[in-house]
Amino acid sequence: MIKVGIFGYGNLGKGVECAIAKNSDMELVAVFTRRDPASVQVKTAGVQVYHEDALKDMTDKIDVLVLCGGSATDLPEQTPKYAALYNVVDSFDTHARIPEHFANVDAAAKKAGKTCVISCGWDPGMFSLNRLYANCILPDGKDYTFWGKGVSQGHSDAVRRIEGVKDCRQYTIPVEAALEAVRSGKQPELTTREKHTRECFVVAEEGADLAKIEAEIKNMPNYFSDYDTTVHFITEEEMKRDHSGLPHGGCVIRTGVTGFNNENTHVVEYNLKLDSNPEFTGSVIAAYARAVAKLNAEGQNGCKTVFDIAPAYLSNLSGEDLRAHLL
Amino acid sequence: MIKVGIFGYGNLGKGVECAIAKNSDMELVAVFTRRDPASVQVKTAGVQVYHEDALKDMTDKIDVLVLCGGSATDLPEQTPKYAALYNVVDSFDTHARIPEHFANVDAAAKKAGKTCVISCGWDPGMFSLNRLYANCILPDGKDYTFWGKGVSQGHSDAVRRIEGVKDCRQYTIPVEAALEAVRSGKQPELTTREKHTRECFVVAEEGADLAKIEAEIKNMPNYFSDYDTTVHFITEEEMKRDHSGLPHGGCVIRTGVTGFNNENTHVVEYNLKLDSNPEFTGSVIAAYARAVAKLNAEGQNGCKTVFDIAPAYLSNLSGEDLRAHLL
Repeated sequence: MIKVGIFGYGNLGKGVECAIAKNSDMELVAVFTRRDPASVQVKTAGVQVYHEDALKDMTDKIDVLVLCGGSATDLPEQTPKYAALYNVVDSFDTHARIPEHFANVDAAAKKAGKTCVISCGWDPGMFSLNRLYANCILPDGKDYTFWGKGVSQGHSDAVRRIEGVKDCRQYTIPVEAALEAVRSGKQPELTTREKHTRECFVVAEEGADLAKIEAEIKNMPNYFSDYDTTVHFITEEEMKRDHSGLPHGGCVIRTGVTGFNNENTHVVEYNLKLDSNPEFTGSVIAAYARAVAKLNAEGQNGCKTVFDIAPAYLSNLSGEDLRAHLL
Repeated sequence: MIKVGIFGYGNLGKGVECAIAKNSDMELVAVFTRRDPASVQVKTAGVQVYHEDALKDMTDKIDVLVLCGGSATDLPEQTPKYAALYNVVDSFDTHARIPEHFANVDAAAKKAGKTCVISCGWDPGMFSLNRLYANCILPDGKDYTFWGKGVSQGHSDAVRRIEGVKDCRQYTIPVEAALEAVRSGKQPELTTREKHTRECFVVAEEGADLAKIEAEIKNMPNYFSDYDTTVHFITEEEMKRDHSGLPHGGCVIRTGVTGFNNENTHVVEYNLKLDSNPEFTGSVIAAYARAVAKLNAEGQNGCKTVFDIAPAYLSNLSGEDLRAHLL
């Protein structure tokens, strides 16, 4: 059994917990939190919740520690720190800071003889993998990534900060015509506005100026001003009834040409439709937690990404079984 | 530069040749054939064609030898034989015989300090990879593979063997309703007939009994009797004009559930639309030829499949560049 610990019990931590329950060779041994442990109730029977401080004393009880904090401030500090004590997996997703994060985690892990995977999930993660495979197969081509239809937490939060807004759920939606143009293999150049639209469901405070809120959303730089955005005002009851899930998904498409006269076009598409973004992300993390445990047992230490790990490490089946049943 | 040799210059050999031309770090150094070399004209300027016999003397000139023979009789003999002399890649696709083929190639390669990849292409190959990843991420789920729309060479050949048939092109076509049912996440049980239809374009000999040919096709065991098949009789000119390409493709879909009450469904789909089956297969092989050269340089010998090779080995970019641009 692979003994897994979870640090951080928000949506992602709960998603990892669900995923562990689906893997017969894994066991959740403990959840760690910065909150008062007594205030945290986990779903898996018999699993204890500890304060973060306990992590320094439990290195002999945990094979892989999954870090479920945020990329902005938590993981840049936590992942290198705990890579010195544990094999760890995180889902660090600030693309621009990945090189620096990788270097910090790699140094800590190598010094301690630990194995780590950073930036694990679906983007970065499975989408990255599919970009890489398709780029290597079709060097003469063009990549496209579409997100949605799904809830963007960052955009929902940005709207919630507007005066007069009680709650918001923001959906990112790929433009069907853009998807079709890409799938035709014609390699269109697409602007930000042509690729995605944004749809906001907003609960306003009583007496708030709805026209002002709508204008503030639509003109918000970086988040909305480059997109066609639709705003719907709804009640708290409607929000709860119709928008309580965290669906997401999207696709990575690469189209490219082969032949001595570029006469043949190929379209490679990887497509995800996810009812629960955190549970799917947690499921990817669980598979890579298995890989981390195996790699560490082989003495393959340091920081890795999904690019560095042979697919077979993700499975609990033997090479013989994989070749017989999945090849 | 990675120096590549091609043994066998049919559709696949030509596809590999095209692919090498698209990879700036690879060079085609020679083509080998069992035919009279003087009868074989290759497209790449300055590349010599040799008889198979020359292979025993060119081990110092070639980094990776790509074997483009057939799976029925060529590769079971050729791949172990040349794994004793070269790093090799083949596209062996007789699923039931993969364990035996793997063992033979592994023994020869390990003895000689060579690195080999067998069963490389899109199915087996990229489809297998996607089955493996999706199975590891969603252990509680169900796999579906659909092929087409595309030309099946095996089925076309089977029809050509019928008395009165001059030529045939057989298309395998996925049933749209089955694809929709699978993508809904409901995990339907589908019969062979429900998943694919078959369409044959046949050029008959003058005076042939068309009704008899059609009946023979539709009732052919293994190939057609379990499918709804449509037969069209066309002229040789129509065959040449409308059916000279070798398009193919298909998709691997896994749907699965997560959550403590299985309340969330996820759909993972990998989809290929290929204008040229042999050129895309050749492109996959070229990427794995690069991996084989790198693995051998690291001393990682023996037989591998796509399951055993970390994605980064397929690329000519450094780990830093991959993390910065594709993660």
